This record gives sequence, C-alpha cells and structure tokens, in this order.
Amino acid sequence: MTANPAICASNLAVRSGDLLQQLHESVPLVQVITNAVVTNWSANILLALGASPAMADVVGEAGVFARSANALLVNLGTPNPGQRDAIIEAVRARQEAGTTWVLDPVAVGALPVRTKLATELLADHPSVIRANTNEVLALAGSGQAARGVDATAPVSAAIGVADTLANHTGGVVAISGQSDYLTDGTDAVWVDNGDALLTQITGGGCALGAVVAAFVSLHDTTLLEASTAAHVCYGIAAEQAARHASGPGSFAVALLDALAGLHPAMVRDGARVRIGADECDA
Amino acid sequence: MTANPAICASNLAVRSGDLLQQLHESVPLVQVITNAVVTNWSANILLALGASPAMADVVGEAGVFARSANALLVNLGTPNPGQRDAIIEAVRARQEAGTTWVLDPVAVGALPVRTKLATELLADHPSVIRANTNEVLALAGSGQAARGVDATAPVSAAIGVADTLANHTGGVVAISGQSDYLTDGTDAVWVDNGDALLTQITGGGCALGAVVAAFVSLHDTTLLEASTAAHVCYGIAAEQAARHASGPGSFAVALLDALAGLHPAMVRDGARVRIGADECDA
Amino acid sequence: MTANPAICASNLAVRSGDLLQQLHESVPLVQVITNAVVTNWSANILLALGASPAMADVVGEAGVFARSANALLVNLGTPNPGQRDAIIEAVRARQEAGTTWVLDPVAVGALPVRTKLATELLADHPSVIRANTNEVLALAGSGQAARGVDATAPVSAAIGVADTLANHTGGVVAISGQSDYLTDGTDAVWVDNGDALLTQITGGGCALGAVVAAFVSLHDTTLLEASTAAHVCYGIAAEQAARHASGPGSFAVALLDALAGLHPAMVRDGARVRIGADECDA
Repeated sequence: MTANPAICASNLAVRSGDLLQQLHESVPLVQVITNAVVTNWSANILLALGASPAMADVVGEAGVFARSANALLVNLGTPNPGQRDAIIEAVRARQEAGTTWVLDPVAVGALPVRTKLATELLADHPSVIRANTNEVLALAGSGQAARGVDATAPVSAAIGVADTLANHTGGVVAISGQSDYLTDGTDAVWVDNGDALLTQITGGGCALGAVVAAFVSLHDTTLLEASTAAHVCYGIAAEQAARHASGPGSFAVALLDALAGLHPAMVRDGARVRIGADECDA
Repeated sequence: MTANPAICASNLAVRSGDLLQQLHESVPLVQVITNAVVTNWSANILLALGASPAMADVVGEAGVFARSANALLVNLGTPNPGQRDAIIEAVRARQEAGTTWVLDPVAVGALPVRTKLATELLADHPSVIRANTNEVLALAGSGQAARGVDATAPVSAAIGVADTLANHTGGVVAISGQSDYLTDGTDAVWVDNGDALLTQITGGGCALGAVVAAFVSLHDTTLLEASTAAHVCYGIAAEQAARHASGPGSFAVALLDALAGLHPAMVRDGARVRIGADECDA
Repeated sequence: MTANPAICASNLAVRSGDLLQQLHESVPLVQVITNAVVTNWSANILLALGASPAMADVVGEAGVFARSANALLVNLGTPNPGQRDAIIEAVRARQEAGTTWVLDPVAVGALPVRTKLATELLADHPSVIRANTNEVLALAGSGQAARGVDATAPVSAAIGVADTLANHTGGVVAISGQSDYLTDGTDAVWVDNGDALLTQITGGGCALGAVVAAFVSLHDTTLLEASTAAHVCYGIAAEQAARHASGPGSFAVALLDALAGLHPAMVRDGARVRIGADECDA
C-alpha cells in the first residue's frame, strides 16, 4: 500500500505513455550542457525522442538560454573552466525562471574538480540527479569512488543514501544500473526496462540524463513520475534496438530509430516498473 | 528570362554534376571551425563527399591553416572564447590568401555572443552565408529570433532580406528550409532536393554548410552555381538515404553511404532546381 | 633470422590473440585525451574492444587520472590551451606511476602549436608514437609536412627515420599506411591487416591510437608485440566490417560491431604480419 495512489506500477505504465504523447505535442526545448564525448549523441537522442536540443554552454549565453529553455541538463563529464562558469551561469539563471534541471555528476568522487563543483551545485536543488551508484554515494559524501566512469557497486548499495539525498535536494535521485532506482525521498520506483548493450556504448547513461530533462519539463506531472517515464521510454527503445543489433555499433543506430518510432501504446505495454510496496490500492 | 544565361534550371543540373566530378578530382582541403555537437559528423560528411576536412581551430594555427586551405567554414554553434579568437584569426588570414569562406550563423539573434560576432564577421564578406530563415532575418537586423536552433518562419519570409544581405556582403546567401533559397543578390535559385529526416538529426544543416564550403572552393564556377551544386548533391544523397532508412539513426548512416556513392550522372538526373524566372532562354 | 626469437610472424599472430584475451579479462582503463572530432568515436571503439575509456582532460584532474589509469593516449588533433596544459599535467603525472602512454601527433609539421608541443613531449619518452609518414618525418625534424591531416608520402619513406626515433624515445614508433610499419629501433614488424575504408572515415587512425594504448597497458608483453596486436585486431575488424559495408557510414557502424565480436581465434587466423627478416627460426 503506497501513500500516494498515483505511485503504482500500472498507473506509472499508463502515465509514461501519456507523458510521451505530451512530449511529442509540446516538443520541449532542452538546454544541454554536457561532456565533449556525447554532445552529438545526446542531441540525436533528444531529436529522436521528439524534443528540441540546444547546446548553449558559452558564458554570456548559457544564462540567457536557461531562462527560455523548458529544461536544462548539466553533465559534468569533461568540465573545462569555461564550461564550469557557463554551468554556474545557467543554473543560477534558470532559478529565476523556475526551469527544471537535471544534474549528471559523471565520475564524481573519482576526480576532484567536478566533485567540488557538483557539491556546490547541490545548493541549487537539482530537480533530478541521474547517476550511477558510485556517483550517488560520492555525492552524498559516503562510499568508495569508482576508478573510472563505470559503477563498481550494485544499485542496492545506495538506496538509503539516495533517499536521503533526495530529501536534501527536494528533487528526485535516479540511480542507473541493471534495474534503475528512482526516489523522491518518500516514494520510490524500480524500472526494469533497458538492455546491457547500453553499457557497451559511450553515453548510454549520459543520453538518459538528457531524456530525463526532456520529460521533467512537462506539465501536470511529478518529478518522480516524469523521471520514471523517461527511464521507461529509453529502456523500451533500448530493448527494441537490441533485437535488431549485431553489436554496439548497430545498437546505437537502432536505438535512435526505436526512440523515433516509439508510441504511447508501446510504452504502456512495455513498461516494467515496480514500486517498493505492492501494486495499486484499487 | 534571366539576365545570366548560365542561371537556368537544366544548366544548373548539368553543372552540379560537373562540379561534383571536379570535386572528386581535386579533393579540396576544407578548414572546419564548427560547433562541438557536429565536428565528427561534419568531418565524415566531407570525407564521404570526397573532400579533405581538417578542424584547425586553435589560436596560432587557425590562421596558418586558413592560408593553405581551399575553403574555410565558420559555424557559430558553440562559440567558446578560444574558438572565437581562432575564427577571427582564420577569417583575417584567409583574406590575404583569397580563400573562400562560408559563415553558418547558428542561432544568431537568439543568443548575444554569437550575434555580436556574426555581425562583425559580415565586414569580412563571407563568400556564402548558409542559415535558416530566422538566422538570416536576425543577421540582417530584422525579424524575430527563434527560441532554439530551429527555424520558426517560412523561407519565403526572408527572400527580400536575403537578396539585400547578399548585395551587402557581395556573396551568396542560402536559406535552408523545405525548399532552399539561394541568392547572390541578382540571381536566385530554389533547390527542392532533400528530405524531412534532415531535420531529425543534429547537424543536418551544419553539415550542409561544410558541403557548401567544399564546393565553393572549386574553380571556373560562380558562388551561386557552386552553392547550388552543394545543395543539390547533399539533397539527392538525403533522398536516397531516406529510402533505406528506418528512422533518424539509420538515415544518418545511409546519408554518408549515399554521399560516398554519388556520381555526376545521378546528380544531373536527380537535381530539382527552379529559378525565379522561367527556364533557360535557349 | 631475427635476433629475438619471439619476433616472428607466426608467434606474433598467436600472441595477438592471447593479448586480446588478456585485454578482455583485465578491461584496461584508458585515459583518452584526444581531439574534438573523434572523442565519441574513440570512446566507442575502446568500449567495443573491451576496454574502459575515460576522457579526463581538465587541468586539476588529468594528472590525478593518469596516476590510476592503465594507459594514457595523447592525441594532438585539436590542442586548445586548456587541453595542452592538461596533456602536460597528465604526461608528467603518469611518469611517477609508470603508466604507459601513446602519442598521436596529428598534423605535426603542418601546424606550429602542436609541433612545438609534440617536440617537447618527446622528452617524456612516449611508449608508442602512432602517426602517419609525414608526421613521423616532421617529428624527427626531417621531411615535408603534409598540407592537411592525411599523409602524402609512402610509409617506406620514413622507415629509417622511425627506427632512429624509436631509439631516441626508447619506445615503439608505428607508422600507419597501406601496410603499417612498427619498430622499436631493433626489431620491426609490418602489419598488412586493414581496409582502405579506414581512410574514408574520420578518426580511422586516431581510434587506432586508442586501441594501441589499451594493448600496451597489458602485462607480460613487449611494447612492440602489444602494438602489433593492436594493429592486427583493429585491422581484422576493419576487414570484416568492409565486407558488410555499403560505404563509410555503414563501415563505421560495422567496425564497432566487428571489434565487439572479435575472438582470439579469429585474430590468430586472420593476422597478416611480416617481419623485416624471414620467418621464425624454429
């Protein structure tokens, strides 16, 4: 039995389809400040999804754009000094406009410059933090850093820490792993959609952060529900792509095609969502 | 009846094929200073076309390279401070060498830093400005800026402004849209080749700017004719790619394959070009 | 008759397969500091190979990462000031840790900033220099620079210079061409694997530099043997990809798939390696 009747698995499946429909109709403008490895990939993922990406990451423009964008993604994968300044400019500017924003703290804990920046950015209350287990642990000041950009600890190792972090930021924390764990500090959702090939292409997680940004820009939903929809849609597209793939190269191509062909009904039918408690009350 | 007998639709189709042949034989060296999202894509498009791309965008090298390159592309999509300085260095250096250059003023009007830079660069007489409607309007100091990087106004809304702008720069202005409008201020051409999938991949327009740069480096042609050939070749390749595509991912892959397989005869047969006035005099 | 009994063609084929196996088991962490055009491509190539790439190229992090990485790649394709500082930081830091590192001196000789940097970096004894003929000649202070990023001289023109350069650095020099020449100053190997389509995609050589970095991080091998294995594996994957390709776009996709599906037995059977002297003594 859940406190919030909307937070149940079958409802979330239906709502995920509805939100994809809403996204297709509204074509949200997503400001993408991301790392040098995944700029092209993230932009193509957003276009395939039906959103409108723009990488405005120059000082003097990042703040202007953040005021008019529907959502902002900040990914700390290659945070050169100019981009760090642009990130701060964008995050502060979006505050006045109330723009939702997503923080993807790539390799936080393992590398000092981004760790300091990410910690400071927590004060700006990211609407969603999308990260792997090690990054969530590091952001919360606990746990071992990974050696590289990939997680070494299971998602379950960070559940309590993620709940606490979500309560601290007032937003959602989404941990990517074999199953993804999403929490707003009160309610929590597991998303089982996805495919292991996502870990064999670069930006498999980074692009998910961009998709989350597109979804949390939508109206008449909650951050947890919209974040869940993002993970479900991306994961279903990955499952479809994996069926047509001969390896990571053809998988990435097929993932773009699958995202572009995704319909609300496919989302409702394909969603594999679990909640911490049992199914819907009704 | 056109003033210039070379500017007629059937001639332009034949000439487009000839120029592709000339490009294949000369393998022009194109300096590409472009945005962080489309560097890889633009380089691959140029290689598939048969040109030789090089991204020399560092201060102290950009000018050196601009003197020996056959053409220079300047795309303002992510103009960080170092790249802005390199752009100015390259544009000034190519002046002495007479290198043709293409300006792609991405999101000009919507964002202040690039708007200022683009306006200044007009004094250096870009051989071709390739842009969407909103960008042309903004560059000319008129019209509404788009919210993001995509055009919101029809091409027809900027025809007069484009003619005036071409007369001001002494070069060509090419507006990308459902049909593309190219003008040198006196003559004008419409190119109907292309496919809507170009708007569902990132860099669909940016890469066209690179293709234009490769073509306007050729000898024994005019800027308008060479720019038309670029739009025709790119558009025909996009049409072929769309026939083999299941979505934007496979379309991008097929576009590279189609460009690499493009022959002059296919260009002559596939060109869909109209001029403002009627067909050829002869 | 070779001085070193391990340096014979059939041994190298077997060892190349063994080393791929070892790479699959150890999943080396490769720090990639590379040019803006090929970041995504290089990371995907490394992931497909079975390595773990990370692009840590920010001052304050590059050195930290170089101490824990298994290997470091430095590619000078777009050396902006911040990246140049990060390169120096990483190269110095990896010295203390003994991390092997690969230098890819893109367009050295043609452009002044990178030429100066590359020359300075020689003092840090790159484990492997992977380059084309013109770059090797330029790095050794002899020969004509190419106009762009592509080689204009045959590999044979730089053999003696490469041997001398390898003796100077104490590492391996690998020249990419129709056949690749690898030398440690004493022994030398020719690798005939590969496909001409590698020259029609951007980063065909740059990604090979990343693959070399992954292989030279392995234990119980020599720099020459490991570099040879890298060239063999990459070349065999390219041959397989070419069989399924309709052009450069589908070739790049198929190359990732082929690399991900590469098995040691395929490497042993497919290796085409020659040594300067005759076959094995035994």
